[in-house]
Amino acid sequence: MQAHPWMPPHDHRRNSDVINARIRQAQRLLRDRQERERTGLFTLEGLRPIVQAFEHDFDIEALIVAPELLENPLGRSLARQGRRAGIPCSEVTAERFRSLSLAEEPQGIAGVARQRWEPLSRASPAAGLCWVALETVQSSGNLGTILRTSEAVGGAGIILLGGAIDPYHPAVVRASMGALCAQRFVRTTPAALAAWKREHGCVLVGTSPGATTDYRAVKYEPPVVLCMGWERQGLSPGLRALCDVMVRIPMVGDSNSLNLAVATGVVLYEIFNQSYTR
Amino acid sequence: MQAHPWMPPHDHRRNSDVINARIRQAQRLLRDRQERERTGLFTLEGLRPIVQAFEHDFDIEALIVAPELLENPLGRSLARQGRRAGIPCSEVTAERFRSLSLAEEPQGIAGVARQRWEPLSRASPAAGLCWVALETVQSSGNLGTILRTSEAVGGAGIILLGGAIDPYHPAVVRASMGALCAQRFVRTTPAALAAWKREHGCVLVGTSPGATTDYRAVKYEPPVVLCMGWERQGLSPGLRALCDVMVRIPMVGDSNSLNLAVATGVVLYEIFNQSYTR
Repeated sequence: MQAHPWMPPHDHRRNSDVINARIRQAQRLLRDRQERERTGLFTLEGLRPIVQAFEHDFDIEALIVAPELLENPLGRSLARQGRRAGIPCSEVTAERFRSLSLAEEPQGIAGVARQRWEPLSRASPAAGLCWVALETVQSSGNLGTILRTSEAVGGAGIILLGGAIDPYHPAVVRASMGALCAQRFVRTTPAALAAWKREHGCVLVGTSPGATTDYRAVKYEPPVVLCMGWERQGLSPGLRALCDVMVRIPMVGDSNSLNLAVATGVVLYEIFNQSYTR
Repeated sequence: MQAHPWMPPHDHRRNSDVINARIRQAQRLLRDRQERERTGLFTLEGLRPIVQAFEHDFDIEALIVAPELLENPLGRSLARQGRRAGIPCSEVTAERFRSLSLAEEPQGIAGVARQRWEPLSRASPAAGLCWVALETVQSSGNLGTILRTSEAVGGAGIILLGGAIDPYHPAVVRASMGALCAQRFVRTTPAALAAWKREHGCVLVGTSPGATTDYRAVKYEPPVVLCMGWERQGLSPGLRALCDVMVRIPMVGDSNSLNLAVATGVVLYEIFNQSYTR
């Protein structure tokens, strides 16, 4: 619904229709993966995610702001910046905003933005420190946390093998604390990854609690793709066969595995630390 | 409710009263922190947690088993082991068990056990690789994940400063995947920790994104207590003043922090790796 020149500036009924429609859209995008996939949009919430979305030039289609909650001056300047850039910005009450928010203490700013995906064919293997490939990640929280760690070490992004997880799920967006906007996403298949790896001479490093090589015994020469399969079954035999080297993180006692996000963090920091001592 | 010799073995009404009471108790312990604190008990669920509780000689007061769900032979042998040890073991339907379970795919075994706490005065500073002290941990998932990592590196356990988090909360128990039973818990104050540290000559290592020393630049000579304050505000000024050294995990780009459990994992693995090269 577009504002027309003939529309009086204070047509509250019309204005509240627009706001209602925007809130409903944001809610549908939070709730419904099919809606996210059909539209290519997603909802993101909170100061840092919105800052990151602006900084990384995401197409923001709408902002929703609760002035009562948006006390942070940076947040207010973001809302102004959005308005100046022509982004429709709806003001709502704190109560209305809370109906949309997943946060315990909502910061009063949310947005609807266009998802970003990179085709594998255009992904540069040398982008960033390394890529992380995930095959069977179950937990949205783990994926969001991995995004944060990948951002922290200057990683390129995440290669998702298979369609099991939607990185634009609100729980991922939330756990990533905005890192999502700083990271690339590729969705592909093991076969396509194999071809890409051959073409570019990437080293695929697989991880498994059952491998024999210590993760610190490997020299991670870029371009590297770190394949994590730490949850439940670990990497599939197909992906394992693709890996140039399999490494393990040593554990003592009765431990049978680390949390996936922790295991990814431990290996990413080894790759990161090696990159500074090379 | 005790079975009496005169009670017929198949008094189903009496038996179902006992089962109902046990289920209600387990549910109350899952739901209600005050109930956990009043009784000193907690509910734990799943194969690995129950295995760990047996292995670490926890006082298990009752087992609840859903034979339909308990397909794993190890689980069945645990239930038999429990019965032989005189632990009351209630059999319930799969449906009933699900009402108690937090798992998506319940494994059909749960228990009520006595909490274990170690007074700081009896805690050995040299137990395990090191201790982890947590001041302001907010997330149960993070605490459970830290327990898993601490178990994996052979850590002694967790020193909780203040009463904010209950490590016997079901979300911690669940995220710890049984590591909870392999780790010690101390609840204390910064002042008592200061006295203990002086008495035993411990090194307190604090972490902060704002510190200047790289976490790998420190030699972690035992006994070490790693103080993590990575969430939100970080360590309090009081605890910071107690620390012998403050370290940071390097980050690039716009990152302002890592997830607490990942940050803890990265430093714990540095301490662990150093212990093998000493």
